Amino acid sequence: MSKQIQIFDTTLRDGEQVPGCQLTTKEKVAIARELEALGVDVIEAGFPISSPGDFQSVVEVSKVLKETVVCALTRAKKEDIDCAAEALRYANRGRIHTGIGSSDVHIKNKFFSSREQVLEQGVWAVAYAKEKGHEVEFYAEDAGRADLAFLAEMIEAVIAAGADVVNIPDTTGYCLPDAFGKRIQYLTEHVSNIHNAVISIHCHNDLGMATANTISGLCHGARQAEVTINGIGERAGNTSLEEVAMILDTHSNLNCHTNIKPEKIYAISKLVSGMMRMPVQPNKAIVGSNAFAHSSGIHQDGFLKHAENYEIINPAKVGVPSSSIVLTARSGRAALKHRTALLGYQFDGEELNLLYENFLTIADQKKIIADEDLMMLVGLMPALVRS
Amino acid sequence: MSKQIQIFDTTLRDGEQVPGCQLTTKEKVAIARELEALGVDVIEAGFPISSPGDFQSVVEVSKVLKETVVCALTRAKKEDIDCAAEALRYANRGRIHTGIGSSDVHIKNKFFSSREQVLEQGVWAVAYAKEKGHEVEFYAEDAGRADLAFLAEMIEAVIAAGADVVNIPDTTGYCLPDAFGKRIQYLTEHVSNIHNAVISIHCHNDLGMATANTISGLCHGARQAEVTINGIGERAGNTSLEEVAMILDTHSNLNCHTNIKPEKIYAISKLVSGMMRMPVQPNKAIVGSNAFAHSSGIHQDGFLKHAENYEIINPAKVGVPSSSIVLTARSGRAALKHRTALLGYQFDGEELNLLYENFLTIADQKKIIADEDLMMLVGLMPALVRS
Repeated sequence: MSKQIQIFDTTLRDGEQVPGCQLTTKEKVAIARELEALGVDVIEAGFPISSPGDFQSVVEVSKVLKETVVCALTRAKKEDIDCAAEALRYANRGRIHTGIGSSDVHIKNKFFSSREQVLEQGVWAVAYAKEKGHEVEFYAEDAGRADLAFLAEMIEAVIAAGADVVNIPDTTGYCLPDAFGKRIQYLTEHVSNIHNAVISIHCHNDLGMATANTISGLCHGARQAEVTINGIGERAGNTSLEEVAMILDTHSNLNCHTNIKPEKIYAISKLVSGMMRMPVQPNKAIVGSNAFAHSSGIHQDGFLKHAENYEIINPAKVGVPSSSIVLTARSGRAALKHRTALLGYQFDGEELNLLYENFLTIADQKKIIADEDLMMLVGLMPALVRS
Repeated sequence: MSKQIQIFDTTLRDGEQVPGCQLTTKEKVAIARELEALGVDVIEAGFPISSPGDFQSVVEVSKVLKETVVCALTRAKKEDIDCAAEALRYANRGRIHTGIGSSDVHIKNKFFSSREQVLEQGVWAVAYAKEKGHEVEFYAEDAGRADLAFLAEMIEAVIAAGADVVNIPDTTGYCLPDAFGKRIQYLTEHVSNIHNAVISIHCHNDLGMATANTISGLCHGARQAEVTINGIGERAGNTSLEEVAMILDTHSNLNCHTNIKPEKIYAISKLVSGMMRMPVQPNKAIVGSNAFAHSSGIHQDGFLKHAENYEIINPAKVGVPSSSIVLTARSGRAALKHRTALLGYQFDGEELNLLYENFLTIADQKKIIADEDLMMLVGLMPALVRS
């Protein structure tokens, strides 16, 4: 039977940490709404104690999400957890994400502590967060390099303390897929109460392995994947939502499925890229501008004979629009309505007028309005008008 | 004992096919020289029959390479093989890379042929190429989706016909690491003469799996990896040279090593990105501008306490320069010499004068000369002056 994989999106937290990618609260709310429409199960909306802006973003995101869990990051500290619980007060479903280092290198060189002390602090943090009435997820930072027996001991203890989800991050992007999958399998076999919690994986891409490690983890017992749109994030970035979703969709023999609506992938990729001012390289899998471009003579010939010769995903499936209508300051409402509809959004009447007005302001400054620009305009439309 | 992995770079062939990335012969020669200095074992320099420019590039690259094998692509056709052999006439070590489709979807929908006929044509092409006196590599196109028993039969037949290298490409980027590794292992176990040839792997990144599939292939019997600088290539691109090289370097338990000089990785990444006008996204592993940037408070704090907390590769190891000297049109020869030296190149006297003259021409047009620009200037210096 196919296993339901929870998609935990951290674009607004791990993604937003990237230099130059900072968002306003209004922009975060716009992206959160689109993430919910995309079908993600959990949105990590910020790290409330880190700044008043982050706190406020978690508050505002909590107000607009209907069913999606809103998650707030903390360290294993009282003031962090108090602050996160307060930021989540409007959430229909809130989750406090707390944790501490689990590898010896982090324990010794970051916490200047001992295995016993960090374990105790982690257990305390979970129990304390649990009292707040929200779901609790525990992260064992740098689990990719942690001693496995100690990691199992720590995970068992935090589950006993009430953790609903246990996050096994490869914080430094060090692991390879086989070894990472075996780590997850080891936990399923050596943590006696593991069935009381969901195992989550959070991978980084320092060696280009984030997606492969994530898939390997899901195949070895994990049921939640932590990802970002376009794979943005600290250093070389996080696991790409679009890659995980489309691998599970394409390879049905893995027996895993998600709630992601593939046809919304292209539009949200453009929205995030535009708002975060973070270009997607043309050869990025699934969402790059060349991802479905066939350029060599041999490939073009083969593609024209039969698309399946060189194409494993139909670009329309992930919402890539095919249209020769280009938007400029001379375009009218009909062209705007057409291109916006291709991205999956219907605007009419007063809504269309408002969108068009904002469109003209930007179009006057730019020669051509790209899909990124258009998605920014869509994302910034007032929620009341759109819903 | 550690296994020597051959690095086959196809930046100038599969990479150069990308829309907007076309290079002049002079630029190809410049990149080929740097690839040789980087330590790659084979350079695929073009597809000679596809255009006179590609033919000429293979000729000129053949002239300048000292030890590196020069490879030319062909289809399994007489005119292609004749043309490639002619283009390779100046090569110290030349290789003809010929092949044909191996999956049923390609056989039926691209070649409108049968398994028996493509096998026969592949065997003929290898035998004919072999007569030209060059090394011969055979590619079984779309091997990632081919029937395994038929693929083994085809590989056995082309090795019997004289193929020195057998390339098992995942042409559409469909495979996952476990399954791809098992394909390679199957060939090692079911092709009786497999030890007479080197198994090569050529992966595409349509699902973000190119590097993971490559590593899996190397762990299951392959001894050559086909890669490009920055992972550029058709659609979502090819396997990244820098990711494969640094995974093998970082994970010594894989027992594989290459001839790549890691300290030259950053400079050639910038050279290729600049000449091909193909930006590297900031969160690209190893070579992105943020790959070693620690931005969140938690990470910065941990990094400052002990770099190893968040860093698995020292950026200096892959040649990332650390310097606050910014180059503009007001910079002098000393600053230019300093920044160029940080990228691994020493210029003095007349050489420095020539570099400075070219530098000023560009600096007058741009506010700041980035490393990409600098590497282009270095790459275009006359070979006679530099060597």
